[in-house]
Amino acid sequence: MVPEAVAAMADELARVGNPSSLHTAGRRARRVVEESREQLAAAVRARPSEVVLTSGGTESDNLAVIGTYRARRRADDRRRRVLVSSIEHHAVLDATEALAAHEGAEAVLLPVDRTGRLDVAALEAEIARDPASVALVSVMWANNEVGTLQPVDDVVRLAHAHGVPVHTDAVQAVGQVPVDFAASGVDLLTVTAHKLGGPVGVGALVAVRGAELEPLVHGGGQERGVRSGTLDAASARAFSERAEQSDGSLPGRADRVRALRDRLLAGVLEAVPEAELVGAPVDPALRLPGNLNVAFRGCEGDSLLYLLDAAGIECSTGSACQAGVPQPSHVLLAMGLDPVLARGALRLSLGHSTTDADVDAALAALPAAVERSRGASLATRAS
Amino acid sequence: MVPEAVAAMADELARVGNPSSLHTAGRRARRVVEESREQLAAAVRARPSEVVLTSGGTESDNLAVIGTYRARRRADDRRRRVLVSSIEHHAVLDATEALAAHEGAEAVLLPVDRTGRLDVAALEAEIARDPASVALVSVMWANNEVGTLQPVDDVVRLAHAHGVPVHTDAVQAVGQVPVDFAASGVDLLTVTAHKLGGPVGVGALVAVRGAELEPLVHGGGQERGVRSGTLDAASARAFSERAEQSDGSLPGRADRVRALRDRLLAGVLEAVPEAELVGAPVDPALRLPGNLNVAFRGCEGDSLLYLLDAAGIECSTGSACQAGVPQPSHVLLAMGLDPVLARGALRLSLGHSTTDADVDAALAALPAAVERSRGASLATRAS
Repeated sequence: MVPEAVAAMADELARVGNPSSLHTAGRRARRVVEESREQLAAAVRARPSEVVLTSGGTESDNLAVIGTYRARRRADDRRRRVLVSSIEHHAVLDATEALAAHEGAEAVLLPVDRTGRLDVAALEAEIARDPASVALVSVMWANNEVGTLQPVDDVVRLAHAHGVPVHTDAVQAVGQVPVDFAASGVDLLTVTAHKLGGPVGVGALVAVRGAELEPLVHGGGQERGVRSGTLDAASARAFSERAEQSDGSLPGRADRVRALRDRLLAGVLEAVPEAELVGAPVDPALRLPGNLNVAFRGCEGDSLLYLLDAAGIECSTGSACQAGVPQPSHVLLAMGLDPVLARGALRLSLGHSTTDADVDAALAALPAAVERSRGASLATRAS
Repeated sequence: MVPEAVAAMADELARVGNPSSLHTAGRRARRVVEESREQLAAAVRARPSEVVLTSGGTESDNLAVIGTYRARRRADDRRRRVLVSSIEHHAVLDATEALAAHEGAEAVLLPVDRTGRLDVAALEAEIARDPASVALVSVMWANNEVGTLQPVDDVVRLAHAHGVPVHTDAVQAVGQVPVDFAASGVDLLTVTAHKLGGPVGVGALVAVRGAELEPLVHGGGQERGVRSGTLDAASARAFSERAEQSDGSLPGRADRVRALRDRLLAGVLEAVPEAELVGAPVDPALRLPGNLNVAFRGCEGDSLLYLLDAAGIECSTGSACQAGVPQPSHVLLAMGLDPVLARGALRLSLGHSTTDADVDAALAALPAAVERSRGASLATRAS
C-alpha cells in the first residue's frame, strides 16, 4: 500500500462516526463516503449512484454472479444458464459452481484460445442455442495470471442483443489499462482497492441503474439495499484516492511498466532460450503492461518460486488464491498448455514501484534458479 | 478508533503481502493473520480454528443465519423454521426475512418482555411444537438499543436438547461484559471490531468445529472455505489487538462506565422527572454497563437528537442502521412501548472515552432540549 494511502486511511481511522448516524460525526463520515463514491465513479467513468461498496473483489464477483442469477431467475424461471469464461478468477468460477450445485443453475464454461483470450464464436453459439435461458454472462476484463485482455466489447454486443446482462471482473485491469464503465456497456464491473495500492478489504461492484441484483447480505439497507453493513469511511477514502491517482498516472506509468516488462522478457529469453512466453503477445492491445508469465519446461514452478524468493524475487505460480494447492493453474490448462509445461510456469508482476534494478536482480537470479529447479525436477522423476 | 489501533493498522498497511501467497511477504502476512486469530480467539475464549474472519457484524450475522439454514435444510428438508428474537439487529431479522421470502423458511419472531428480555417460555413452546422443523435459533447476547442482556444459557439449553444450533450476535456484548464462547455453549457467535475501538470493515463469526454452515461467498477457499476473499492482515491485527486489550481492561472499565451511566440516569430523572428508563434495570446482571435509553413522552426523538447534537452530545434514536427512517424502533415496539413514548426514546451510549465532564455536559444540555422538543412536538400536533 502506498504511503499516501496509508496516511489518508490512518487520518480517517482516527475519526469517529457511523455514516448511517444522524449526528455531526455521522454526517461527516457520510460525506467522506459520498465524496469517495464520486471520486471512485469518476476514475472508472461511472455515475456515483452506480457504485456499490463491498468488502473486495471476491464479494463483488459473488454479488454479481449470484445476485444476478437469483434476481433474473426469479423474474423468469427459464434463466438458468450462467456463461463464464474458463479462465475466470475462482470467485466467479466457484460462485457459478455453487449455483449449479445448489440452485439449479447450468454452468457453461466458455473456451479460450492458446493466448488465453475468450473464444467469441463459442459465446455466440452458446447464447444462440437458447437466449431466453441465459441468466448472465461473466467475462473478466483481463486475466490475472497471463494478463490477456478480453474482448469485452464483443461480449456486450452479443449478450445485449438478447437482453442478457454482462458482468466483468476488472480487478486486474483498473489502474493498468483504461477502463471506461459507461463506454464499455457492461452492466456490472468488479474493482478492488488493494490492486491499486489501497487497502485490502474494500472493493466495489459498479452496477448500472436498474441492474437486477439480489443482495447476498441483508440488514441496514446501505448501498441501495444491495449491500448492508456499516459503511467503512476510511477504506472508502483510501480506495477512491488510489483509484483517482492510478487513473491520473496511468498513461506514463503504463508505458514505463511495459518497457520494464519487455526488457525482463527479452532478458529471460536470452538467458534461458527454451523459455516460453505464456499468454498473449506483449502488445498493449492484447496484454496488461505489468504482467509477465513465462514457462520453463522441466521445472517445477513451486521450486522456482522458493529459489527466487530466497534471492529476494517474489513471484507466483498459479493465482495467489490458488497458491499452495499443488495442481496446475486452471487458466493454463484452459489455454491448452500441457500439464508439464504448465507446472513450470511463473508469473512475474511488475507495478508502479518496480525499478530497473528490480529487473536486473530478477535477470541475475533466474538462470541459476531455473538450472537448480530443473535438476530438482529430474531428480524427483528419477527417484 | 483508539490511537494504538490506528498505529498498529497503519504499520501493517504499509507492508505488502497476500497471506495466501507463498513468498516471504505472503508468509509474513499469513503469520500476522494467524497470530491475530489466536489473539482474538483467546479474547472470547474460543479456539483459533473456530474464528472465521469476515467483513463485519452484518456479514457474520448473515453467514450464521443464511449459511446455517441452507446447510441444515439441505441435510433435512423439514428444517425450515428460523427462530429469532423480535429485538434482533436488522442483519439477523432481514436475513431471516429474506429466507422466508425466497427460500421457503418460516420466520418465527420470539416475543420479549417489557424490559426487552427474551420470553424463554415462548422459545421453549416454539421448539416443542415441532423440534425437527427448527433450522436454528438466533438470540443476541445483549440488545444494542436498550442494553438488555439475554438469557443465552437458557436458549442453548433448550435448543441443544433437540440438537438445534444456536447463533448469538454478541457485537454489543464483547468488550462490555464477559463473553466466553466455550462456556456459553453457543455454536455461532458474531463479533465486530469497530465496537471495540478497532476498524470498520472487519469482524468474525466464531463457529464451533463441525458447525453446519454454507458459505455466502465463494472463491479462494480462505477461512476453512466458509469465507473466501483476500485476507486482510492489517484489519485482523488491529481487531485482535483491540479485542485483547478490551478483554484485559474490562473489569475496571465496566465499573467506571457503569458508574458514569448511573450518574447520567440519576441526573436525567432528577432534571426531567417524567422521563422513563427504557429496557432492563441498571443492574450489572441485566444490562450492559454503557447503555442508557430514556424516553421523554411527548418529545420527538429526532428533534431531541438534533438539539443535543448542536450542544455537542451525539446520541441515537433507533439503532444507527435504522436512523433516518422515520418509524419507531422495532425493538421498542416489540417491548410493548406505545408508539408515542417510543418516538420520544433516546439512546445514550457511554464508552471507554466517556468522562465525567461528558456526563455533566449531557445533563446540562438535556432539560432545555427536552423542553424545546416537547414544544415542537405540541406545535406540530396543533397545526
